[in-house]
Amino acid sequence: MRLWRRAVAELLGTGLLVAVVVGSGIAAQELSPGDTGLQLLENSFATGLGLAVLILVLGPVSGAHLNPVVTLAGWLLGRSSGTGPHLAEAGFYVAAQVVGAIGGSLLANAMFGVPSQISGTDRASGGHLLGEVVATAGLVLLILTLIRTGRENLAAPAVGAYVGAAYWFTSSTSFANPAVTVGRVFTDTFAGISPESVAPFVLAQLVGGALGVLLAGVLYPTAARRA
Amino acid sequence: MRLWRRAVAELLGTGLLVAVVVGSGIAAQELSPGDTGLQLLENSFATGLGLAVLILVLGPVSGAHLNPVVTLAGWLLGRSSGTGPHLAEAGFYVAAQVVGAIGGSLLANAMFGVPSQISGTDRASGGHLLGEVVATAGLVLLILTLIRTGRENLAAPAVGAYVGAAYWFTSSTSFANPAVTVGRVFTDTFAGISPESVAPFVLAQLVGGALGVLLAGVLYPTAARRA
Amino acid sequence: MRLWRRAVAELLGTGLLVAVVVGSGIAAQELSPGDTGLQLLENSFATGLGLAVLILVLGPVSGAHLNPVVTLAGWLLGRSSGTGPHLAEAGFYVAAQVVGAIGGSLLANAMFGVPSQISGTDRASGGHLLGEVVATAGLVLLILTLIRTGRENLAAPAVGAYVGAAYWFTSSTSFANPAVTVGRVFTDTFAGISPESVAPFVLAQLVGGALGVLLAGVLYPTAARRA
Amino acid sequence: MRLWRRAVAELLGTGLLVAVVVGSGIAAQELSPGDTGLQLLENSFATGLGLAVLILVLGPVSGAHLNPVVTLAGWLLGRSSGTGPHLAEAGFYVAAQVVGAIGGSLLANAMFGVPSQISGTDRASGGHLLGEVVATAGLVLLILTLIRTGRENLAAPAVGAYVGAAYWFTSSTSFANPAVTVGRVFTDTFAGISPESVAPFVLAQLVGGALGVLLAGVLYPTAARRA
Repeated sequence: MRLWRRAVAELLGTGLLVAVVVGSGIAAQELSPGDTGLQLLENSFATGLGLAVLILVLGPVSGAHLNPVVTLAGWLLGRSSGTGPHLAEAGFYVAAQVVGAIGGSLLANAMFGVPSQISGTDRASGGHLLGEVVATAGLVLLILTLIRTGRENLAAPAVGAYVGAAYWFTSSTSFANPAVTVGRVFTDTFAGISPESVAPFVLAQLVGGALGVLLAGVLYPTAARRA
Repeated sequence: MRLWRRAVAELLGTGLLVAVVVGSGIAAQELSPGDTGLQLLENSFATGLGLAVLILVLGPVSGAHLNPVVTLAGWLLGRSSGTGPHLAEAGFYVAAQVVGAIGGSLLANAMFGVPSQISGTDRASGGHLLGEVVATAGLVLLILTLIRTGRENLAAPAVGAYVGAAYWFTSSTSFANPAVTVGRVFTDTFAGISPESVAPFVLAQLVGGALGVLLAGVLYPTAARRA
Repeated sequence: MRLWRRAVAELLGTGLLVAVVVGSGIAAQELSPGDTGLQLLENSFATGLGLAVLILVLGPVSGAHLNPVVTLAGWLLGRSSGTGPHLAEAGFYVAAQVVGAIGGSLLANAMFGVPSQISGTDRASGGHLLGEVVATAGLVLLILTLIRTGRENLAAPAVGAYVGAAYWFTSSTSFANPAVTVGRVFTDTFAGISPESVAPFVLAQLVGGALGVLLAGVLYPTAARRA
Repeated sequence: MRLWRRAVAELLGTGLLVAVVVGSGIAAQELSPGDTGLQLLENSFATGLGLAVLILVLGPVSGAHLNPVVTLAGWLLGRSSGTGPHLAEAGFYVAAQVVGAIGGSLLANAMFGVPSQISGTDRASGGHLLGEVVATAGLVLLILTLIRTGRENLAAPAVGAYVGAAYWFTSSTSFANPAVTVGRVFTDTFAGISPESVAPFVLAQLVGGALGVLLAGVLYPTAARRA
């Protein structure tokens, strides 16, 4: 696949992922006012299913990273084996993801007739940052495991299931994705995050990503056979 | 398969799809009065699962389009490659879908003892129409991707998951299907739509279908290998 | 497999199926008092998942019919092709299913500390009986389709998904199973059914089963290739 | 795989399993106050998905027992055939599981900013203990069935689905795991269990495990072919 086509896939996919997250969040907020538990159930139901579908659709084109941490992990690990993307390619991916994520936020706002405003939801507490470390470590460990055990074809349901669960078991509702985090700044609704919280969230996600790479190295030092 | 048998499959399948959508909507409305969020969760849960099963059952007979936009996209793309249905066949499919959809609405009303009345629910706002464009584009892109990457056997869970998510992330709750839209006119319940809203909805769905064909052409210009 | 072992599988499987249906119904009733919509969502969530697991566990032993209508359809169709069970075997299966179903109801009552009483819930309205016809026809059509298209390995998720949806789109919440219907007499809780409603429900289920066999004959007159 | 690596996998996996159970329980409690039914739906949704993912990630390393009863059953059955783990290995697994489980509880508390206190939730009633027997018997029967029919690759979705259902159909919400039971002592939140209830719960789980081994022996006396 040519690079521009893969960048289009990353832009489109990350954009639609944010549209799913933000859009289902707005719907949940409007339809279940005052019931934040039910809102998160609706939001996690839609996100888990939607993310699985996006991986099915875009995986064959770009690998469906849809996440700078995943792209970065792939670049890091590929450097030693010589099979990963070049740094320039990785940068291209990340740029496409961030632009797409912002577009997805604006699209969701437009569909629901909500003005596109900067979110005022502060999320950067200590517990939430620990939640982001755990959420991102788990995501990266899952993806690297599937690759190293030759089960990439399970990525769609597995990553969808992971995120559906992680919305609940992490205190931060599992952003686990720097591009999505930036995109979610541009909506002052259920899924929004204030600009002040972005840097600590992204930092926690990078730490989590590194932890995930480390754990994958411990558990799968070499390519394992499918069990 | 003979054409009449395939038309029966499309009629039965679209009918049962509408029966699932309308029936679960009535059940949700009766059992969760006043809680529209929970109603939509119940409705989307049932529709996602039911649609997946219908594709399993009818796919081997007719391809389980169950949707004029899908039939039209298949005809458009098949014309160039010479593998798609003839225009007459496509017309036959669409007619079967619409007749089935109306029957499904009446069946659901009968099961729940609700009079079959024309819906008074006006849905045609700008945001909802944008929602229908997005919903239908995503559906067509998903289906064409599965075909072009040789993963048609994933259509049942993938399309079910897509619709389960799309009920939430689009503002229109994702009709994304002209036949189903017409069928849903014939019930004045949760899933109903007023006759006045049909034309704008169908137009938005056709625009979305064209966008989906376009996106599939950009991402998968030729048949890609499974990733 | 020897017949007694297959009968044990049918008894155990139908018993556990009823334990899942009745048990999750009691839990739903106790934990979500007064919210029948949420109760049915919880009940359908548990039943869909539980039934899928039971088919995985018992399918290799007995075929995991767990349902007299399915056994009867298999006997009817096998008579002509010479591959199905003998009538005596079918009778043995049905007896095991009914005994198991009653046991499952008692087990659920015991787990939840609820007295085992005959249910007083009358369910036999015209709409509900139409619901049972539709629910059972769909179930039989699904199972016969999977057999005729060589996709029996999908029975577990497909039948689980079907029942999860059918709880919602049929007005009767889809019993679709004479043995389970009898078993549900022995609990005066959420999932119970009064003895007076059993005969009309079973009759409707038999009509639905015959309709399902008919539809399968129309759609799949001969074994079709997997699509 | 070396033993220490497998022990790391069991420790990490059981820890994350408890983090999912406890963490999603705390989130459910905070977001849906006073609605225990919705809380359990959220908790079971997250646990079913999360457990499936953990089995995918850790299965190739250690078999992803994550449960002393499963390890014990494997040791018992392997002793006769000579293929299972040595007793010392089994003990190593169990120790790793218990240590991990406690750590997972502390991690969840930390993420949600909840003090790590001993739970005061007494759960040891007669009905609950019967529930644990049923829950553990079903779990062990499922796992042994998948092994004996050569479908280990279905363990992730099957066990996830089983636990999602078992939270509802058993009165005890299905702990079914001695290590997880111990871990859940260390959180005084939704998923907690008081120290006094641990011994009866573990005893019931061991009885259930033995029953599951027995049932598997009846249904699958020899390795069966996939049906």
